[in-house]
Amino acid sequence: MNDENDAPVAVIGLGLMGQALAGTFLKAGHPTTVWNRTTSKAGRLVAAGARLAPTVGDALRAGSVTIICLTDYQAVHELLGATDAELDGTTLINLTSGDSTQAREAARWAEQRGARYLDGAIMAIPSVIGTAEAVILHSGPQPDFEAHESTLAALGTVTYLGADHGLASLYDVAGLAMMWSVLNAWLQGTALLRTAGVDAATYAPFAQQIAAGVAGWLPGYAEQIDSGSYPAEVSALETDARAMAHLIEESEAVGVNAELPRLIKAMADRSIAAGHGGEQYPVLIEEFARPRND
Amino acid sequence: MNDENDAPVAVIGLGLMGQALAGTFLKAGHPTTVWNRTTSKAGRLVAAGARLAPTVGDALRAGSVTIICLTDYQAVHELLGATDAELDGTTLINLTSGDSTQAREAARWAEQRGARYLDGAIMAIPSVIGTAEAVILHSGPQPDFEAHESTLAALGTVTYLGADHGLASLYDVAGLAMMWSVLNAWLQGTALLRTAGVDAATYAPFAQQIAAGVAGWLPGYAEQIDSGSYPAEVSALETDARAMAHLIEESEAVGVNAELPRLIKAMADRSIAAGHGGEQYPVLIEEFARPRND
Ligand SMILES: NC(=O)c1ccc[n+]([C@@H]2O[C@H](COP(=O)([O-])OP(=O)(O)OC[C@H]3O[C@@H](n4cnc5c(N)ncnc54)[C@H](OP(=O)(O)O)[C@@H]3O)[C@@H](O)[C@H]2O)c1
Ligand SMILES: NC(=O)c1ccc[n+]([C@@H]2O[C@H](COP(=O)([O-])OP(=O)(O)OC[C@H]3O[C@@H](n4cnc5c(N)ncnc54)[C@H](OP(=O)(O)O)[C@@H]3O)[C@@H](O)[C@H]2O)c1
Repeated sequence: MNDENDAPVAVIGLGLMGQALAGTFLKAGHPTTVWNRTTSKAGRLVAAGARLAPTVGDALRAGSVTIICLTDYQAVHELLGATDAELDGTTLINLTSGDSTQAREAARWAEQRGARYLDGAIMAIPSVIGTAEAVILHSGPQPDFEAHESTLAALGTVTYLGADHGLASLYDVAGLAMMWSVLNAWLQGTALLRTAGVDAATYAPFAQQIAAGVAGWLPGYAEQIDSGSYPAEVSALETDARAMAHLIEESEAVGVNAELPRLIKAMADRSIAAGHGGEQYPVLIEEFARPRND
Repeated sequence: MNDENDAPVAVIGLGLMGQALAGTFLKAGHPTTVWNRTTSKAGRLVAAGARLAPTVGDALRAGSVTIICLTDYQAVHELLGATDAELDGTTLINLTSGDSTQAREAARWAEQRGARYLDGAIMAIPSVIGTAEAVILHSGPQPDFEAHESTLAALGTVTYLGADHGLASLYDVAGLAMMWSVLNAWLQGTALLRTAGVDAATYAPFAQQIAAGVAGWLPGYAEQIDSGSYPAEVSALETDARAMAHLIEESEAVGVNAELPRLIKAMADRSIAAGHGGEQYPVLIEEFARPRND
């Protein structure tokens, strides 16, 4: 095995993200081979010491691990499917964004051709790659992750989620749903408070405290979901629903958007209609777990 | 002025919450007078040393400050409007839940009758009253809050928001919107991950970390809102919208509810349609600040 900083790596795809990944490997001391459809995008990296692979096949043989970062899975299939390059014996880490089905299919396709395959998702923007702020999720066979973990660590906070190749994509979109939900709830509150002349900066620390505080409840609430039992220890859903009505009424009264409040209440109302009004909030998992069919 | 723990207080309304408030004042050493429509609910408090006021008017004269905690503002108006008790010279702190308009109207009504009036909102359940976990918001004239702050402090984490009587209600519902949004986003993610066999307890710490992390961005994002300028320093809204489409597709593909993802994208799409695709997320305040009118 190579010493961690000496492990040769290859990066296929030099868009905004691929260039950040390859540049970070170079800075960390890894012999770095790059390939991109549009060759000119390799210029700065080559000037910084990267080797430009003449073909995809060459890139695939250059590193102990090959990072792939293209627009989408279709691009990955077009590129790797078209090339007559041998995948057998290679290790691919596909950091292209996609869904869990695409990840599992790509894994099957690559493994059938003799490759080791990990799927990944980058929860960061190019400028923070190489810092702890860059969270990069991985899923697939654990030994393959562990074999390259010290190499991948150059990129940021590198996390292994499990053997199912779909996990990185699922955690990624779940995390994004949390991100947008915190932002939207904050915007809802900011809109409400601005009607009373409170500026966004004044309200933000309050919203921050509530979000972080509620986040702390999640592990405890998760136990209710995993046990399938939702005693109303803190508050019953029908009590919550009355407060949700206040949120809607207040939003309408002061003339701000009420769609988010209405969705919050609609989910709770359906659960109450299904007989769960006396149970606690996490019982709503039953609504979130199924498509709406009315 | 009384020493803080000697200040006599009165509590009108001995439901679940009023009993917790009165019991906490008693434990903190305050001479406590109570009144409730249904007298029997005062039993335990009287046994613990509270004085039962024979009339509402008596209760209003008993304390240096009177806490009111009834079902809703209508009950408050019915009770105080019907009584011939003198409000002149009293200080009322109304912790009954309501909206900002009701709070402002109640303040005007009480002040016209010579009372000092603070409005409040309790962001806690009865069992935590008296601990730091009980956040109690107040708004109204600052001198009136400060005159009783040390007395109120017995109840929990007591916060003053500003002179506008509507602020306590507005912050309250804004905070609730954040609470439900964090919980719903976590449920969305939990539902997604469960389709891959990941249990809620495994996913919860990840969701917790994202929520707390994103909450930390709010003060910075608030500056964009207050300045009305939204340069895409981190990411442009149209890039976000593509990832939102992934969230919807993934939710639909694995068969979980997609209403929250669809609302997230609908808000962003409207902002993009209004020409803000190249700006950053907080520009969505313009959508949240107005009712949907299409
Ligand atoms: N940028 C971010 O902030 C960010 C954050 C998290 C995740 N991601 C994900 O990272 C991936 C790459 O993003 P990016 O920002 O680097 O995108 P980008 O700047 O648009 O680059 C796209 C890359 O894909 C290549 N490509 C597209 N179709 C191809 C094909 N058929 N054959 C060969 N190469 C093809 C492009 O090659 P050419 O140069 O020849 O066009 C280019 O290297 C995406 O899945 C994205 O969702 C990006
Ligand atoms: N409980 C909580 O977890 C919680 C949390 C935060 C905020 N709050 C708020 O605190 C307030 C009280 O809640 P609670 O839980 O104590 O409610 P509750 O147990 O239902 O008690 C309601 C109280 O209001 C009185 N009341 C209702 N209508 C009246 C009228 N027309 N005249 C005189 N008295 C009247 C009731 O008197 P009787 O006993 O004679 O019926 C009782 O004392 C509500 O605004 C609630 O939203 C409660």
